[in-house]
Formats: sequence, structure tokens, C-alpha cells
Amino acid sequence: MERSVCLSPQEKEQLLSYFETQVMQVLNWLAAFSPDEEGGITRLLYTEGWLETQLALAEKMAGCGLKTEFDHVGNLFGKLQGEDLDAPSIITGSHIDTVVQGGMYDGAYGIAAGLLALDYLQRQFGKPKRTLEIVSLCEEEGSRFPMAYWGSGSIVGKRNFEQIVHLQDSYEVFFADAMQRCGFGEGTGRDSRRSDIGAFIEVHIEQGAVLEKEGIAIGVVDTIAGQRRLKFEVIGEANHAGTTPMHMRRDALEGVSVMIQALRQEAVRIGAPLVATVGRLQVQPNVPNVVPGKVVFTLDARHDDEQALDSFCQWVMKEFTSLAAQRQLAIHGTEWFREEPVPMNDKLKKKMDDVCGKLAISSKRMVSGAGHDAQMFEHLCPTAMLFVPSRSGISHSPEEYTEPRDLAVGVLVLTELLYRLGYEGEEL
Amino acid sequence: MERSVCLSPQEKEQLLSYFETQVMQVLNWLAAFSPDEEGGITRLLYTEGWLETQLALAEKMAGCGLKTEFDHVGNLFGKLQGEDLDAPSIITGSHIDTVVQGGMYDGAYGIAAGLLALDYLQRQFGKPKRTLEIVSLCEEEGSRFPMAYWGSGSIVGKRNFEQIVHLQDSYEVFFADAMQRCGFGEGTGRDSRRSDIGAFIEVHIEQGAVLEKEGIAIGVVDTIAGQRRLKFEVIGEANHAGTTPMHMRRDALEGVSVMIQALRQEAVRIGAPLVATVGRLQVQPNVPNVVPGKVVFTLDARHDDEQALDSFCQWVMKEFTSLAAQRQLAIHGTEWFREEPVPMNDKLKKKMDDVCGKLAISSKRMVSGAGHDAQMFEHLCPTAMLFVPSRSGISHSPEEYTEPRDLAVGVLVLTELLYRLGYEGEEL
Repeated sequence: MERSVCLSPQEKEQLLSYFETQVMQVLNWLAAFSPDEEGGITRLLYTEGWLETQLALAEKMAGCGLKTEFDHVGNLFGKLQGEDLDAPSIITGSHIDTVVQGGMYDGAYGIAAGLLALDYLQRQFGKPKRTLEIVSLCEEEGSRFPMAYWGSGSIVGKRNFEQIVHLQDSYEVFFADAMQRCGFGEGTGRDSRRSDIGAFIEVHIEQGAVLEKEGIAIGVVDTIAGQRRLKFEVIGEANHAGTTPMHMRRDALEGVSVMIQALRQEAVRIGAPLVATVGRLQVQPNVPNVVPGKVVFTLDARHDDEQALDSFCQWVMKEFTSLAAQRQLAIHGTEWFREEPVPMNDKLKKKMDDVCGKLAISSKRMVSGAGHDAQMFEHLCPTAMLFVPSRSGISHSPEEYTEPRDLAVGVLVLTELLYRLGYEGEEL
Repeated sequence: MERSVCLSPQEKEQLLSYFETQVMQVLNWLAAFSPDEEGGITRLLYTEGWLETQLALAEKMAGCGLKTEFDHVGNLFGKLQGEDLDAPSIITGSHIDTVVQGGMYDGAYGIAAGLLALDYLQRQFGKPKRTLEIVSLCEEEGSRFPMAYWGSGSIVGKRNFEQIVHLQDSYEVFFADAMQRCGFGEGTGRDSRRSDIGAFIEVHIEQGAVLEKEGIAIGVVDTIAGQRRLKFEVIGEANHAGTTPMHMRRDALEGVSVMIQALRQEAVRIGAPLVATVGRLQVQPNVPNVVPGKVVFTLDARHDDEQALDSFCQWVMKEFTSLAAQRQLAIHGTEWFREEPVPMNDKLKKKMDDVCGKLAISSKRMVSGAGHDAQMFEHLCPTAMLFVPSRSGISHSPEEYTEPRDLAVGVLVLTELLYRLGYEGEEL
């Protein structure tokens, strides 16, 4: 008979109840470290609250019998040594930093889930065959300094100290100074770069409403979508709103409103997983009685298929240019941000599908429209990611919420997956 | 044979040449008083530059043999006494104040034209039958204090000291204090309210591009358009731009872009003189990777027909509400500014048409989409207004420009009209 962390519906129910209580304890405990005045969590990289949280987490990990270590950028690892000293580690975890006025689940949930899984596995099954690790990554959001994925990027070699030399936060504090004040920086500890990682598994809230609306417990991430961000300037002629007849106007806002319509129609026609958003828009001179002379706006487009994303962005450029020309408007478009799609590891995805099937937990493959640390790790090792539902899809807000039972289901799936990889010795 | 200020093409040409030189001299002289650093004119009510300009104008008027007088709000009159002591005055003029960083023609041209006309008529024909006056109105733009038409409104009884008690400028200077520092205010001089005005004639730049595009010299204003200004709030749901599929969005900006399209189409369908403008628009949270949760925007609609304007605004309310409902967006619309259309005096308009015809000057009847002092005077007496072309329709800008010859044509038409009313005794 196959082995598992829970062999009957009764065991599954007991384990879920246990994880439900435990995960809320850990999340509430973490949330208490960096509360802000607005009822949210603001835990920015290398702040006092951030350091306090990482140090407390290290203590908690040690209390669970894990061997803890910081690397020189402040990533915190808790290791459960396996019997095979040569096999690369299986790592799980997420980031400890938040956006300004964020919620208590984004990032923190992945750390809590990993901690509970390792603690449970060790207490139930003792020493694993392969080494298991939990990581509390120092930074992912890019909320304090203009630099995101600092933690995971440093591990996989996509980030380094040269890149942060000139970076300052909004109070003009240098990145390196903030890091040093927390005791980290070049030469302070173990180099972040690692080559001994066999797999990375990240558990995270969905930050969208797809799972909730479809009533599904687990999202197995197929691909982390690629992104393009473009900025457009549309220039017409500012004119007196009273004295300029409709047919003499070159109204930049009227032109942009047609572009937004065209964009929406084409995105809906192409269909999921394409999403396209005009999120920022500014009108000049922005006065009630003046015909808008200029509009600046952004386009955020995402898709799991690089080619589809490229061809959509080419269509946008062509269509916008044509719509502008029909109205005698000038238009300039520039791309200012680009990320390629990152497919997750096939074998791990199938294992995750299988785990959910065996545990009778509903799941679906889905594209992650948001970026995550997992996309950095996939450059280094087989990587997987699983989502649990977010209420109303709300995230980056104190309103962020996931049902404790939904959180527990995620912990259970992670625990089972780590059991298979760490104790059963299933191949990657 | 009919009498006129010019009886032959040669005389007309000579007079135009004369006015061309003179009007530029007066306008350049006025412009030199309140230059701003950006190359424009900033002459705000009750500032030092404003007072200096009015005092210099008073001196100039006196130099032309006019009897000058300030009223207690700072309107400056220059009177050419007529033989008939009982007949109400024929007044011409415009406002001396400007917007911030305005041009040298808006307002100032009407004063320069009136001054040249009275000066010429007096020198050529001596004392008129009816008293003619030129007025330099203290304020029209509402650029310093939240109060427009202070000068003309005080004369016709639509403005009074009670209305300005609490008003402050952006530096928190009280209206009454600023007024007193210039030597004006209650009890300082002649009451502004007048009941001895027989007609008011205002000459102004068009501030639109209709005359220029159609190659016409003079616009005879039929009606000053009525205005409605509305403010709309459209509320959807702010969501993550990456994790929210297109069909799950309630994108406030997408909804508003459809409203702008519908508005434009309906305004074009109804046709001139209706104009409808969305001039101010603000998106929340206005971040590239967040689906817009809220958009606030203004609508400025104008028409010379009160009923047509009402029915258009009713259509807008109904259509916007329906477009919002189709997208599960909430919408709130409120009217925050309203001005009824003001038709100019029929007999004066016909006289103006006739003057242009006799002088072989091209003219057309047109609606003024902008508000003017003339709309205040029409509540008190027969009022007329004439426009000269504005290059590219640009106004309220240092780029404001009218060809000297076009300015001269306006002065000539005004002179002829004042001649007929003041010297020939034509009835109103």
C-alpha cells in the first residue's frame, strides 16, 4: 500500500484541523511584528520591524529543531538535515517583506506553511532521506528600494551587490547602509549564491478571485505569466471647451478612450490567460473647461506565452498608431518593463496534481498573473508553486483574507509533497 | 447721402491703417504693466500691477479728453459727455484683469478698441448727441478669488459686498482687504450700481478658431451660450492587473472610456452650437498594475438653447447610468455650475450686421461658447458683442494672437456703430 501523511478521511480531517489552528497561530504571531497605523502590515526590507521578524523566525525555526542560518543578504534558512549528505536540498518558503500597508498572508503564508510542514514531518517521521529546508526570503516586493526579488535573485545569481550600489529609498537612505545596519552585506556571512538546491516549492495566496469563484481549493501554477509594461503619450491640442466646435477638436482624451475600448475588445477576443490593463492615466491640463491636449497612460499586458504576448503588443502599437492618426493625434509608445513567462517544472506540477487527486482535494492548473520568487528559482532548479484562494481576489491590502481551512489545505498538500520528495525518495 | 466714419474705400483703408498702428501701441503699452516670468501677462484683481494699470489708463483717458471716474469696486469709466443730458449712456469696454499667464488681447483689446473709437470720434466729430463712455472693468476672469464678473456684476446689481465677505485668494488674503489696499471698497467712492446705461457694446477676441478657419473678419454674437458643469464618480473594483481575468473585472476607466465615446457621438450628432467636453479626469489608485477602481471626471456642456442643453444633459445622465449598470459600475452625477444662455439684443445685432455690410467687411452671426461681461450687462440694457479672429483659437496663453489688421477692423466696426448711436442718434 502507498504511504502518505494521511491514509484515511479521518486522518485527513484531523490533520486539516490541526494545521488550521497552527497556521493561524503562526500568521497572527508574524502579523504582530510590523503592524502599521492603518490596520495593515508594513514590513519593508532592512527596517527594524523586518529584522525583528527575521530574528524571531530564526528562534522559532530553532525551536522546531531546524538548524538556522542567515546568508549575507539576510535570507533566513531552517534546515532539516537528511540522511543523504550529497543530495541537493528540497527548499520551500516565500518572502517575509510586505508592500506598504499590505496584508498578513502575502509571503508570510508560504513561510508559515513550510514551517508547519517541516515541523510536522520531523515529529511524525524523524530524519528525512533528503535534506528539507525552509527559507524566509528577505525581499520580493520592491517596496522600499527600486529592486524586487532581492532575496531569491541573490540565491540564484540574478542579483548582486553591484546592482544596488546607487539605490536609495524615498528617504534617501542607501540600500547598502540599510543592509549594514541590520548586520548584513558583503563579507558578513555565508554567500547567498547556492548550487546545492534540488527543488523549490512555493505556497502562496492566489491574489486573484479565480479559485474562489470556481470553488476550487488548490491552484497548481502552470506558468508565471510574462509581462510587458508600456507607456503612451498621446498629444492633441488643448483648446477652450466653449469656443472650439466638436469638429475642430483634437481631443487627446477622446482618442485614448477609443484606444482603451479597442484594447479591451481585443483582449477579450484573444481570451485568458491574456490580461491587459490601463491602470495609470493622466490628463493635461486636466481642467474642466479645457479640451485635453495630452494624455499619458500605461499599459500592463500579461500572458503565459511569449509569442502571444509579443504579437498582442505589436497589435496594440499598430492599432493605437492608426487610431491616433485618424484623429490627427501624435502618439509615442515605449516599453519600460519586460519579464518573460516562466513555466514551472513539469514533473513537480504532475506530482502536485497527483497529490491533490490522492487527497481528494479539488485543484486546477492555472497561470499566475502575478510575479513570484518561484520565477527566480526556476532559473536554478525544478520549481513549483501552489495557490490557495484569496477572498474577492483582494491582496496588497489590509483586507487580504483567506479562510483558515483553505490555508490548512495548502499546508497539507505541501506536507504531502515534501513527504514524497524527502521521505519516500520520489524522483524529481 | 448716408453719413459714416468713412465714405470711400480710400477713407476706410486710411482709417484701418491708422487703427492698426494705434491699437498695437495701446495693447503693447498695456501689456508692459503686468508681465510675468513666462512671457505672458498676469494681472490679477487688486494687485499692485492691476492698480498701476488702472491708474495709467485713467491718465490716458483723461489725456484723450474723457472725464474719468472710478466706482467703489474699481471699475474705471471715461466719459465723453453728450448734448442730451437725460439720455442714458452708450458704454463700450471690457475687463482689465487676466488669467494667470494670460495673453495681451483677452479683455485688453476691448478697452483699447473703445478708447481709440472715442478718441477718434471726438477729434473728428466733436461732442456727440448721446453720452459715450468707455469702461475698464475691474474683473471678469475669477482668477484670483473664486468670484467672476465682479466688475460688470457690480454695475448691473448681480454682485455685492455681502457675496465676498468670506472670500480669500490662494494666499489666504481676504477679498475686502485686497480691495481696500487699492483704495476701493464700500463708501470709498461712487456706488457701482448704475441705472443710466442705454446700451453696452463689447469688442473681444473670439478665443476660438471659427472666424480664422472660415476667413471671416467679424463675428456678431447671437447668444452667449448657457453652460452646465457636471461631476461624475464612477466606482468599480480595484484589482490586481495580473491576477484578475478580463471577464471578472469591474474596471471604472473602461466604463468611463465608453461614456466619453457615447458623449462624443451624441454631441456630434446633435451638432453645433452644442459642445461637450470631458476636461478633467482622475483615476484611482492610478497605478500601472492595478485595475482602476474609481474614476472621477467632469463634463462641460454648452448650447445657446436652454431646452436643448437641458435635454442633452438629461440624455447624458440616462446614458451614463445605463452604461455603468451594464458593467456593474456605480455612478453618481452632480451638477455644480449652471449658466443660462443670454441672447444679445436683436436691434443691436442687426445694426452690427448692417455696419459690416455697409463697410464691406465680412461677418457672421455666431454663438459665444465662452462667458463674457456682456452677459451681465444684458440683464440691465440692450447689449451687443463682436468678435475678431484668434490665431488657432488659442487664448488664456502667452500664445494668444490676433493680426493687427483684424484688430483694426474690429475697432472700425465699433467706431461706426458708436457713431451711429452717439452722433446720428439712431434708435436702439
